[in-house]
Amino acid sequence: MLTFAQFGAGRIGRIHAANIAAHPRARLARLVDVQDDAARALAESVGAVVCDASSVFADPAIDAVVIGSPTDTHADLIEEAARSGKAIFCEKPIDLSEARVNACLATVAKAGVPLMLGFNRRFDPNFAELRRRIDEGRIGKVEQVIVISRDPGPPPAGYIRSSGGMFRDMTIHDFDMARWLLGEEPTLVHAVGSVLVDPEIGRLGDIDTATVVLTTPSGRQAVISNTRRAVYGYDQRIEVHGSGGMLQAANVPISTVSEAGAGGITGDKPMPFFLERYAAAYQAEIDAFIAAVEAGTPPNPGGEDGRRALMLADAAIASLKQGQPVAV
Amino acid sequence: MLTFAQFGAGRIGRIHAANIAAHPRARLARLVDVQDDAARALAESVGAVVCDASSVFADPAIDAVVIGSPTDTHADLIEEAARSGKAIFCEKPIDLSEARVNACLATVAKAGVPLMLGFNRRFDPNFAELRRRIDEGRIGKVEQVIVISRDPGPPPAGYIRSSGGMFRDMTIHDFDMARWLLGEEPTLVHAVGSVLVDPEIGRLGDIDTATVVLTTPSGRQAVISNTRRAVYGYDQRIEVHGSGGMLQAANVPISTVSEAGAGGITGDKPMPFFLERYAAAYQAEIDAFIAAVEAGTPPNPGGEDGRRALMLADAAIASLKQGQPVAV
Amino acid sequence: MLTFAQFGAGRIGRIHAANIAAHPRARLARLVDVQDDAARALAESVGAVVCDASSVFADPAIDAVVIGSPTDTHADLIEEAARSGKAIFCEKPIDLSEARVNACLATVAKAGVPLMLGFNRRFDPNFAELRRRIDEGRIGKVEQVIVISRDPGPPPAGYIRSSGGMFRDMTIHDFDMARWLLGEEPTLVHAVGSVLVDPEIGRLGDIDTATVVLTTPSGRQAVISNTRRAVYGYDQRIEVHGSGGMLQAANVPISTVSEAGAGGITGDKPMPFFLERYAAAYQAEIDAFIAAVEAGTPPNPGGEDGRRALMLADAAIASLKQGQPVAV
Amino acid sequence: MLTFAQFGAGRIGRIHAANIAAHPRARLARLVDVQDDAARALAESVGAVVCDASSVFADPAIDAVVIGSPTDTHADLIEEAARSGKAIFCEKPIDLSEARVNACLATVAKAGVPLMLGFNRRFDPNFAELRRRIDEGRIGKVEQVIVISRDPGPPPAGYIRSSGGMFRDMTIHDFDMARWLLGEEPTLVHAVGSVLVDPEIGRLGDIDTATVVLTTPSGRQAVISNTRRAVYGYDQRIEVHGSGGMLQAANVPISTVSEAGAGGITGDKPMPFFLERYAAAYQAEIDAFIAAVEAGTPPNPGGEDGRRALMLADAAIASLKQGQPVAV
Repeated sequence: MLTFAQFGAGRIGRIHAANIAAHPRARLARLVDVQDDAARALAESVGAVVCDASSVFADPAIDAVVIGSPTDTHADLIEEAARSGKAIFCEKPIDLSEARVNACLATVAKAGVPLMLGFNRRFDPNFAELRRRIDEGRIGKVEQVIVISRDPGPPPAGYIRSSGGMFRDMTIHDFDMARWLLGEEPTLVHAVGSVLVDPEIGRLGDIDTATVVLTTPSGRQAVISNTRRAVYGYDQRIEVHGSGGMLQAANVPISTVSEAGAGGITGDKPMPFFLERYAAAYQAEIDAFIAAVEAGTPPNPGGEDGRRALMLADAAIASLKQGQPVAV
Repeated sequence: MLTFAQFGAGRIGRIHAANIAAHPRARLARLVDVQDDAARALAESVGAVVCDASSVFADPAIDAVVIGSPTDTHADLIEEAARSGKAIFCEKPIDLSEARVNACLATVAKAGVPLMLGFNRRFDPNFAELRRRIDEGRIGKVEQVIVISRDPGPPPAGYIRSSGGMFRDMTIHDFDMARWLLGEEPTLVHAVGSVLVDPEIGRLGDIDTATVVLTTPSGRQAVISNTRRAVYGYDQRIEVHGSGGMLQAANVPISTVSEAGAGGITGDKPMPFFLERYAAAYQAEIDAFIAAVEAGTPPNPGGEDGRRALMLADAAIASLKQGQPVAV
Repeated sequence: MLTFAQFGAGRIGRIHAANIAAHPRARLARLVDVQDDAARALAESVGAVVCDASSVFADPAIDAVVIGSPTDTHADLIEEAARSGKAIFCEKPIDLSEARVNACLATVAKAGVPLMLGFNRRFDPNFAELRRRIDEGRIGKVEQVIVISRDPGPPPAGYIRSSGGMFRDMTIHDFDMARWLLGEEPTLVHAVGSVLVDPEIGRLGDIDTATVVLTTPSGRQAVISNTRRAVYGYDQRIEVHGSGGMLQAANVPISTVSEAGAGGITGDKPMPFFLERYAAAYQAEIDAFIAAVEAGTPPNPGGEDGRRALMLADAAIASLKQGQPVAV
Repeated sequence: MLTFAQFGAGRIGRIHAANIAAHPRARLARLVDVQDDAARALAESVGAVVCDASSVFADPAIDAVVIGSPTDTHADLIEEAARSGKAIFCEKPIDLSEARVNACLATVAKAGVPLMLGFNRRFDPNFAELRRRIDEGRIGKVEQVIVISRDPGPPPAGYIRSSGGMFRDMTIHDFDMARWLLGEEPTLVHAVGSVLVDPEIGRLGDIDTATVVLTTPSGRQAVISNTRRAVYGYDQRIEVHGSGGMLQAANVPISTVSEAGAGGITGDKPMPFFLERYAAAYQAEIDAFIAAVEAGTPPNPGGEDGRRALMLADAAIASLKQGQPVAV
């Protein structure tokens, strides 16, 4: 039985808390959040107690921590957890600065504790199946990856401001997917970006519509198509072209119902947003973390995956600014 | 080069005329229709001449006839054509009376001329592919057939009156499909029918909504689902369940375009009606007729197929009246 | 907080136990099963205790019971639970004899306790969406229902022997779906059945392949297509045709991944069997039961739904024997 | 009645000849090809006569020419036809050199004859429907276009050598699609390309796998994904994302048949290659050309469309060489 403490009782925190509580070999003992009410309500529903951060690190009964607090607290909490010898599951990103990430990962390495990054999409049953089939050799050698990743609507201005920009906040998941599926590290990034959805996003110095091309040394190519607004829902599709065939992971519809009428045959929209679309993925990633900690094997994706995805995001930002491809 | 005369310059006549004209090894020389204007216009566009029936039968240059005139002329024209030694392509049905069909087929048999019945659906590329795969053994032994056959809208009252009723007019195609796919003659027919679309159809003594179950001696089952009105277009689907798998032939959409919006993902409707849906089938069936006549092999489907489909229709009518299954 | 006892720690029992344990307003306190080991293991994982039936009925702390034990124990347990004033959730069927069902329902009525029948498919998100849209009037008046319901493989002979036959055991779910979607009680049943899958099933006096047609007084029609073996998985589809359009609920694939290769484009199979396909439905039905008990409203589907589905199954058995439609 | 002469009796020539012959308001009178046998056979089947080029230009009975001969003859034939006052339908490209294209178009402009370029995909019923819906405003303002365009297999080395390279030969169609759908001229091209299919293609100085990104002044983006080999057939899909929704044009399968077996649900592959996939498009483009000539309106796409697509191809070649985006 693995005993957890969790930082963060927000949207994503509630998901992790429930998944840990429901896990047959784990329990959530402590919950930390600056929003006391939210923390208390969530703690009660899963049988945990609310406390402050220092009691978590001081408590030898805590085996592992889940870090789901705001981004700017991640690196500090990771380091404190590492120094206290806790296994760490942290939401992406580790930090928005590559230097800080490097320092943080060095601390983790020194402490020798397991660290898993919350790249939840690797655990989506559909994308996981994609990868499994690539690994099985079903489409031969991977040649091109197309990641369609479109949010239903833009976040509020406040979120944009502290997000590190679209590439570090949203595309970072797609960078991870591309890396994970290409089977070779991308070494060149070329990004084009526009403000087509909301001029306010442009005023904040960010973009809302992007196409990013990644290439690898052997000539494999990935393209990511992003927008902050898709009126038909959360569009999350991937296709992988290989020497022996193509794999596609389609959207997950809300239901399999279709309606035939005078206007055509209408199928249901994709799941509205990440909480619904990736519900199974969140459950599977915590299970994978627990299994890795139990087995003493390095959890996957780990800190290096977080660092590499951030490097690709930073290269995309540079490419956008310079108007040309940037080497990673 | 096969030289044709054609009876009928209506909707279906125009299709056959164009397909013969475009065929590399056939030409349409003569056209007969009581509607002189229609005949003249069609003849001109394909380089044929308008004449009366007797000149067709008297002309030794005519190798083959296409009979696409009204149903009540079919049997007589078949017999005259047979006696003149012409190869015969006739739209279904031969006649609405089984006795008349039998007499007519006897005349054809005596004359030894080839006779093909226009069960066009056998030549639809999708249904033909279904059958080809069954014959290849892809789904093992056929066990159950489901024929979904739904017209976009009811015909006018005048048509209903002379149609012989829904089972002889519309379902007859589905009976042919069921026979063709079951791989064994159905020997029991059970039909339920209702008037749900238009009360006028009921007043004319017909039905507009039906479910018909056919069974064969070895226990294979077919079910036909019919209606005279489907607001989303012409619904023509078949699925075949076998010991080793299932084959489905889906509708043919007007285009492959789908539109994703706030209301869902809307694909195009099926082709509106038989002229569009079965355009390729009409072309393929004339080609098959020409090839059979050239090769001297019996065309398929032949007169016996017409007779058997009519027997199933008659059995369905009897079943509907008696409220119980009827043996064929 | 609703306190449950549960009878049965088998396959379906494990699902209900986990769903109750995970429910925020319910807990599973007691578990009864003749298989002591299974009961003990399941009880431990959800924090319940194993006991015998009489202690359940004697314990005033138990608000509700889940009956998931073998079919021949259902009616007795329902009656005992009713007399002890417990709310009752019972797996279908109440009993295989209509007389016994009637007696049992009379006892429940007299006791005035809530009784819900486990027709789980009503809670499948896809079928529930189908029904919701019918109720919204999206396809006008319902005219025809097509239920495709095909098991991946036949049960063992022992199961067949005590199952009451295919219509009472398997088709009963489809009868419930048809009733629920037709919007009018079927009054005529015509069934054809064959032994095409396994001769052993025939030797046991049962069938494995069936087509059943139901009709209602106003002429609505439903057809059910059943088999005990589909090599491609658990095939559970429904389509509903109305005056204003058609609704279809497609299968739920294992994943949304498709693979394009030289042989075609291959999508994933449907979920393998009911435990996977209806996982969300099992969760939703227990939630609906808990909500109904809390609200003091009659749970739905109730005992009468169980009785009516059984009547349709019995009529289908009679129809099969007599070779003609049977009135309900 | 429009009278045509045609240059070229090869693969594409046979298609145009048949479509003209079958057209109700056009006839093919003369056919020119250096391969005398091919010309003679084709001429016979459509009732044309074989002759040399000069007789075509000298014959005042010839209203229009179809140029389907090898690429290096296009510009000369266009100019001669223009000087003889013939309406011109020419397969893409006009020429591989932009200077030669400009000179040629100047000659056409001076002669004042209609010139249509064979960008057949604009006439594909699916892509045409895509465009029609964009024009109708169904998805608001276009923001991003994704063109998936993948050939089933690489052409022979000889073809590659004289093709002008992948971008001028294959991608040029996709450049035209992107321009046509973006609704704004792309002004920046960034191309990445690799040799992943066949090293021989690399030895010939060409690539076989490419991703090209186009951007417009207002920030609209198009991405083209190309390969010379897709084992599952000819992959021709387009999706267009707009402010109000998304449009997708899917592949056209060989049939609508799918097969459900132990390995999954397998649908048919896309049409094998352009002759089959774009059969309807070839017919529609000749019809549009005839209609434009009859009406005296400029045919569309015209010479300028040919020139612009070539400019994009040249920019892509430059981008590939320089490793950075190139302005058009």
